Amino acid sequence: MRENFDDELARVTSCLITMAKAVREAMRQAGAALLTADYTLAQQVAVNDAEVDVLYRVVDDRVFHLLAHQRPTADELRSTLTALQAAADLERMGDLAVHVARAALRRYPATAVGPELTELFRAMSSTADRLAGKIVLALSDQDEVLAGQLDGDDDAMDQLHRQLFGVMLRPDWPLGVEAAVDGALLGRYYERYADHAVNVGQHVLLLGTGKTAGAPGSV
Amino acid sequence: MRENFDDELARVTSCLITMAKAVREAMRQAGAALLTADYTLAQQVAVNDAEVDVLYRVVDDRVFHLLAHQRPTADELRSTLTALQAAADLERMGDLAVHVARAALRRYPATAVGPELTELFRAMSSTADRLAGKIVLALSDQDEVLAGQLDGDDDAMDQLHRQLFGVMLRPDWPLGVEAAVDGALLGRYYERYADHAVNVGQHVLLLGTGKTAGAPGSV
Repeated sequence: MRENFDDELARVTSCLITMAKAVREAMRQAGAALLTADYTLAQQVAVNDAEVDVLYRVVDDRVFHLLAHQRPTADELRSTLTALQAAADLERMGDLAVHVARAALRRYPATAVGPELTELFRAMSSTADRLAGKIVLALSDQDEVLAGQLDGDDDAMDQLHRQLFGVMLRPDWPLGVEAAVDGALLGRYYERYADHAVNVGQHVLLLGTGKTAGAPGSV
Repeated sequence: MRENFDDELARVTSCLITMAKAVREAMRQAGAALLTADYTLAQQVAVNDAEVDVLYRVVDDRVFHLLAHQRPTADELRSTLTALQAAADLERMGDLAVHVARAALRRYPATAVGPELTELFRAMSSTADRLAGKIVLALSDQDEVLAGQLDGDDDAMDQLHRQLFGVMLRPDWPLGVEAAVDGALLGRYYERYADHAVNVGQHVLLLGTGKTAGAPGSV
């Protein structure tokens, strides 16, 4: 019975890793499509998200099956519920990548990000990629040290987010209202992507310890 | 054993109802604070959110206890996991009310919403209240008909959201970049609040049927 449980939980974790890789690639592509006004790439992100949604349902089914047919100990039960929460965060990260891609599609053939914001969004994009890369590794190796490092990257994202508003709200902002509205929403998508990545990191920490994560997400 | 399970699940549902009432009141107060630049009221929303976070942890603990100590049937297991997902959505609705309140605090003593947007945000606020009110009733009475009606209100919110962008992106928009950035983010908070409300409604539908909800949230 124990062996079955461990095998099944390993399969769930394997799905989480596949999801993490997919949402990393999704945001990487969305960021590239945003900065280069690449219509085909942006469309691809939206199409590929269906796969992440399917993976979420697979995790949900496996967790359900596991709880219905195994008799997990308290620690195993906590790990199983934590895996389900991690899957929900990853699914949401996929959605946020789609939002970024859709912003690129909406302004095509123009770029949704004007020259004044290009460097900032390049930095947000690479910060998002760093976060997602660490999640993949943390899930793969159950690496608690790596998972604990996500807060630093999240702080970097928050700082970029503040810089973004600083640029857009300067009196000499030259790009007008529409570009600022796009910038504000895009900044929000990246910030939330980072928040969910941090949540996944916390879940990885808990997958090992069997403790509770408390309220999800950050305000 | 069955009686214990039903009692415990009823206690979980009771917590969900308390959460739903709290996040309804939170968004009602946040909307009022936003439209009248009421600093004290806006602060109150942020303070009260701690209670919603505590309730989330209570639901999480009770669900954990229930799964660890009872032997739920497959349908009961699905209802229990669904309750946990509903709690996560409600917790997030509380966060979004705090975001609206913080926008009011940030612009005080001015209003974050200029005269051009007052009516739209009044309508978004009352649509949010209608959604939250239906959730409270649907959870209280396990009312599947009511829960199924949430999509209509969500469509109304989406339409208001589109109208909002229509107003802000008109060439003669008089309020400048900062007001448009505020408007875009506030619109997003209301839209997400409505999305989470719809999710809770779907969970109510499933609390009765024991089916799976699939991927959480909407893109």
